[in-house]
Amino acid sequence: MPETDYQAIFRGALDRLHGERRYRVFADIERIAGRFPAARWRQPDGSSREITVWCSNDYLGMGQHPAVVQALTETARRCGVGAGGTRNIAGTTSPLVDLERELADLHGKEAALVFTSGYVSNQTGIATLARLIPHCLILSDAYNHNSMIEGVRQSGCEKKIFRHNDLGHLEALLREAGARPKLIVFESVYSMDGDVAPIGAICDLAERYGALTYIDEVHAVGLYGPRGAGIAERDGVMHRLDVIEGTLAKGFGVVGGYISGTAAMCDAVRSHAPGFIFTTALPPAIAAAASASIRHLKRSGAEREAHQRQAARTKAALAAAGLPVRATETHIVPVMVGDAERCKAAADRLLERHGIYIQPINYPTVPRGTERLRITPTPFHDEAQIARLTEALLEVWQALDLPRAGTPVVEAAA
Amino acid sequence: MPETDYQAIFRGALDRLHGERRYRVFADIERIAGRFPAARWRQPDGSSREITVWCSNDYLGMGQHPAVVQALTETARRCGVGAGGTRNIAGTTSPLVDLERELADLHGKEAALVFTSGYVSNQTGIATLARLIPHCLILSDAYNHNSMIEGVRQSGCEKKIFRHNDLGHLEALLREAGARPKLIVFESVYSMDGDVAPIGAICDLAERYGALTYIDEVHAVGLYGPRGAGIAERDGVMHRLDVIEGTLAKGFGVVGGYISGTAAMCDAVRSHAPGFIFTTALPPAIAAAASASIRHLKRSGAEREAHQRQAARTKAALAAAGLPVRATETHIVPVMVGDAERCKAAADRLLERHGIYIQPINYPTVPRGTERLRITPTPFHDEAQIARLTEALLEVWQALDLPRAGTPVVEAAA
Repeated sequence: MPETDYQAIFRGALDRLHGERRYRVFADIERIAGRFPAARWRQPDGSSREITVWCSNDYLGMGQHPAVVQALTETARRCGVGAGGTRNIAGTTSPLVDLERELADLHGKEAALVFTSGYVSNQTGIATLARLIPHCLILSDAYNHNSMIEGVRQSGCEKKIFRHNDLGHLEALLREAGARPKLIVFESVYSMDGDVAPIGAICDLAERYGALTYIDEVHAVGLYGPRGAGIAERDGVMHRLDVIEGTLAKGFGVVGGYISGTAAMCDAVRSHAPGFIFTTALPPAIAAAASASIRHLKRSGAEREAHQRQAARTKAALAAAGLPVRATETHIVPVMVGDAERCKAAADRLLERHGIYIQPINYPTVPRGTERLRITPTPFHDEAQIARLTEALLEVWQALDLPRAGTPVVEAAA
Repeated sequence: MPETDYQAIFRGALDRLHGERRYRVFADIERIAGRFPAARWRQPDGSSREITVWCSNDYLGMGQHPAVVQALTETARRCGVGAGGTRNIAGTTSPLVDLERELADLHGKEAALVFTSGYVSNQTGIATLARLIPHCLILSDAYNHNSMIEGVRQSGCEKKIFRHNDLGHLEALLREAGARPKLIVFESVYSMDGDVAPIGAICDLAERYGALTYIDEVHAVGLYGPRGAGIAERDGVMHRLDVIEGTLAKGFGVVGGYISGTAAMCDAVRSHAPGFIFTTALPPAIAAAASASIRHLKRSGAEREAHQRQAARTKAALAAAGLPVRATETHIVPVMVGDAERCKAAADRLLERHGIYIQPINYPTVPRGTERLRITPTPFHDEAQIARLTEALLEVWQALDLPRAGTPVVEAAA
């Protein structure tokens, strides 16, 4: 029997990534609570040094908030660490039930359902919802996150992709679909470009054509709206959305994901979603930490204000220095490079020479030709750090002869 | 435009579950660290009372082990709670890198890769592995867990199902497949019946016919083998398996999942698996807690011995009382009921009248007609508790007139 050399196949797959300059190396870091955004970087030789993280999605630094850390440690001491089972089999703990109530209240919905991650909430949430609706057509924004794409794919339903944030195209597809059930899936803040969906106008279309709406607010919950419920809350349209999906891992600084909506919708997903039913529940201590974070951000707007202020200051400083920062309406600051290898080289030089950690963003996370450094300022990045970042970027741009502001960057199709 | 009533669709889906007597109600509990398996049950009216949990998959009670709780709380105080990003974007923390080394060492493999859950490790791990191998045929045990079935399905590869633990059928399918690449996916301990795969014999076949092997040891890691690496370690065949998948959420008492194998295999999955790439990493404190648990169970066999002893004593006590306990080779103790509604009624009566929590296991987790109470004794279930369990079950069996040992239970096809 001829033998298949499986290891050669795996090595070949890696060689192709190296050849395309998109093999990824993970920086091994340890964040320092109380001194965010400082972290220890453990270098490949085992030695370690202090760096500044400029690419974290712990957007508000809530992961180190004393109330969040305390909720975690107190609950773990009281209940232990793991949940010990699936939600159905001994894994539904009181802190998790309380978290779901907290989330339903946050979004002004009847109910919420927590998953092990935002990824899983989109993947199994969208797939399950769409499968429950007979003859459902899914209308999906072209820039949707991989977790939503996988959810759409796994539903097995017919789908149409509408051009990113293009209301005319969405309406044409809705009209064309006629009376059949329709599910519109889209995001509020698109995380790589930092642009925002016209949520109210999408709700107008959904109402006119009888479609269900599913919005991903993972890059907005905690960060926008008077109580931190997201862009839909800020825009006053939260009550018009059928399903709001969010994460506990970014603005709230913990881990996990959720959907919120009517009691019947959440109960139907709870009862049918394989990625919810057959997996161990989130630990009670994690649930308690997430609740503490949400409760704090419902009451306090200080973090949100400081976040927007420091993001605006960072954008202004980089733009004034002639760096190719893309204009965004949000807290996300993309600095364009336009080439995978040079993007990686820039990030390596920033880390090694300047102690500044910004992960290069290459294909397939963004289209080829739009490779970038994606900078995420937080309330804890102060003026001195912004000045050091600007100087470091200028040194790197000079040394590697990277394109300045005004230089056109080739935009490949998504 | 005629309107679709989406909420009516969701309510209809729930009505169907109620009609089939398989609508699931989650018990809301809070475990009490230091007094495992005691927990507080928060009843629907909001009042709470103490109960004994007899269905936890925290098989050794490691979730409340002082070293595990301390690793969690110490790391959270030092690093904060969340990882703050995906593995590629600021989320690779030193405790997580250390955990992967700990796991590779546990299984005697070159490398390991941690996922947010065991479910995700199977789903995206199997799908990615199979997709990387051109023209791969998947051979999958008929009783595999839903997460493995979803991984096989999402790979898009051709698949053949072999009858549960049936070496003759597996060999026939391997022979029939000829020289093409083949991936055998199976479990070591099947969690609902508690039976064990003939791992060595499956490896013999894999070697003879040139197939890659992928084993799920989630109900065995921590519990079997001299260092707690699972059934394959106990049987001396661990080195013959290509991919060993496990969980951090059951025997190790925390949360998360992993695969281990060659460096090239892990790196290829790391670089290609969407469910790994596009999701926030496990929190460093969770990783540290898991490492503490694994390290403890590598050195200490006391928990494993007590676990087997108390499981055997439970089985013996129930069998001696004439209860229909199914003979198993493992720590899992199924007590057969054979009807969804009566199974639920038995569990409700146990909880409400006796303060004993054992979740009913109904379709689709097990085939219709094989509904059961699945009991999982731990080292912390002592003789007095076993005696109380036996008495309570006898009272329930009598009150509900349930079938005794020797009564044939109809076995539906899987």
